[in-house]
Amino acid sequence: PPGKKVLIVYAHQEPKSLNGSLKRVAVEELSKQGCSVTVSDLYAMQFEPRATRNDIVGSLHNPEEFNYGAETWEAYKRGSLSSDVIEEQKKVQEADLLIFQFPLYWFSMPAIMKGWMDRVLVQGFAHEFPNCYDSGLLKNKLALFSFTTGGTKEMYAKGSISGDIRYLLWPMQHGIMHFCGVQVLAPHICFAPEYVSEEERKEMLIAWAERLKTLWKENPINCSPEWYFK
Amino acid sequence: PPGKKVLIVYAHQEPKSLNGSLKRVAVEELSKQGCSVTVSDLYAMQFEPRATRNDIVGSLHNPEEFNYGAETWEAYKRGSLSSDVIEEQKKVQEADLLIFQFPLYWFSMPAIMKGWMDRVLVQGFAHEFPNCYDSGLLKNKLALFSFTTGGTKEMYAKGSISGDIRYLLWPMQHGIMHFCGVQVLAPHICFAPEYVSEEERKEMLIAWAERLKTLWKENPINCSPEWYFK
Repeated sequence: PPGKKVLIVYAHQEPKSLNGSLKRVAVEELSKQGCSVTVSDLYAMQFEPRATRNDIVGSLHNPEEFNYGAETWEAYKRGSLSSDVIEEQKKVQEADLLIFQFPLYWFSMPAIMKGWMDRVLVQGFAHEFPNCYDSGLLKNKLALFSFTTGGTKEMYAKGSISGDIRYLLWPMQHGIMHFCGVQVLAPHICFAPEYVSEEERKEMLIAWAERLKTLWKENPINCSPEWYFK
Repeated sequence: PPGKKVLIVYAHQEPKSLNGSLKRVAVEELSKQGCSVTVSDLYAMQFEPRATRNDIVGSLHNPEEFNYGAETWEAYKRGSLSSDVIEEQKKVQEADLLIFQFPLYWFSMPAIMKGWMDRVLVQGFAHEFPNCYDSGLLKNKLALFSFTTGGTKEMYAKGSISGDIRYLLWPMQHGIMHFCGVQVLAPHICFAPEYVSEEERKEMLIAWAERLKTLWKENPINCSPEWYFK
């Protein structure tokens, strides 16, 4: 609805890909609804995925033994994280909804997007014990994982060789988003777009646009082991 | 035993960390056994985690629409992957055992190690339909995930808030290693080393060295949903 803010974190190298089209459809449909949409196009930004000492500007709390988690926590509190991380954190802070758009790589996100999680969701900003899971610091936000797969829907069925697709969502939806207090909407999955017709790929784009029309009325999933492994 | 080849893929920024010590212990113990040990120290190598067009030397098969999976498959067959990827593939090819040593970041590997998986385990080299899972191209190799956690063992118990630790091993052990035909040894997990005494951290190193003494007699796990979600 008008006024809602959406951040799309997008990881595909090719604008002409189905992922590129899914991202464009989301920008168009959500803008049409009056939402304000921001895109972090990770490959275009050449986003840095490596968690290193460079993420802290100035001197370290303990230069004798580098501890990434401890140093970035301190740096967050001092306002001395590197500028690219701070910029992403501002986008997250302002957003009501985070959409992650990517091709599934090895049952997970591409490394460039995993690096976004590793570097942006710093302690102090996204969580700070005991503020994790339901009381995580990003509560009152929503997240949605929208991705394409190489394998078919049949391969990702319970009892099939790749297992229920929900098994692989646990680290991303529960381990990351739920840990930060974010409520998770059902994933949006386009299975094996490389093996279907041009016509079917167009239908995938239409289905995504249709879902987005009523997205704000959806209830989050119950992010517990029962949803994933029942 | 003498003659066995081991590749340790290691992802920690700080040599003085427990991960650094676990890596050194493995190098020492396995060398003592007469194994030949190679280490890929990803942060020291400034290993590139991003999957981009730069991974293909020379011209593309389809420059009109860049498809990373299709292009790297072609490039592998032509011998025109980038030299850093080829070098890692040689190390994998020669190894009998792959050890992945890392701190758990967000229920998974740090992005720099995920990038190693994304870029090194190319179609044609590690798998090629229908040669996946039990007939994956890296069969007859073993893999072992050795990692440290932030959370305690109690938090990663079945029924606890973070769920059974095995839930998060599914994408790494089954989705990546088993997919490539690699047999997986039981993971080696050091829970919450930052919250225990110096003495207990030393015990963790001793326990790892002890396990390595009889590692070659271990049987791989049964990498099926029953192992993970029972």
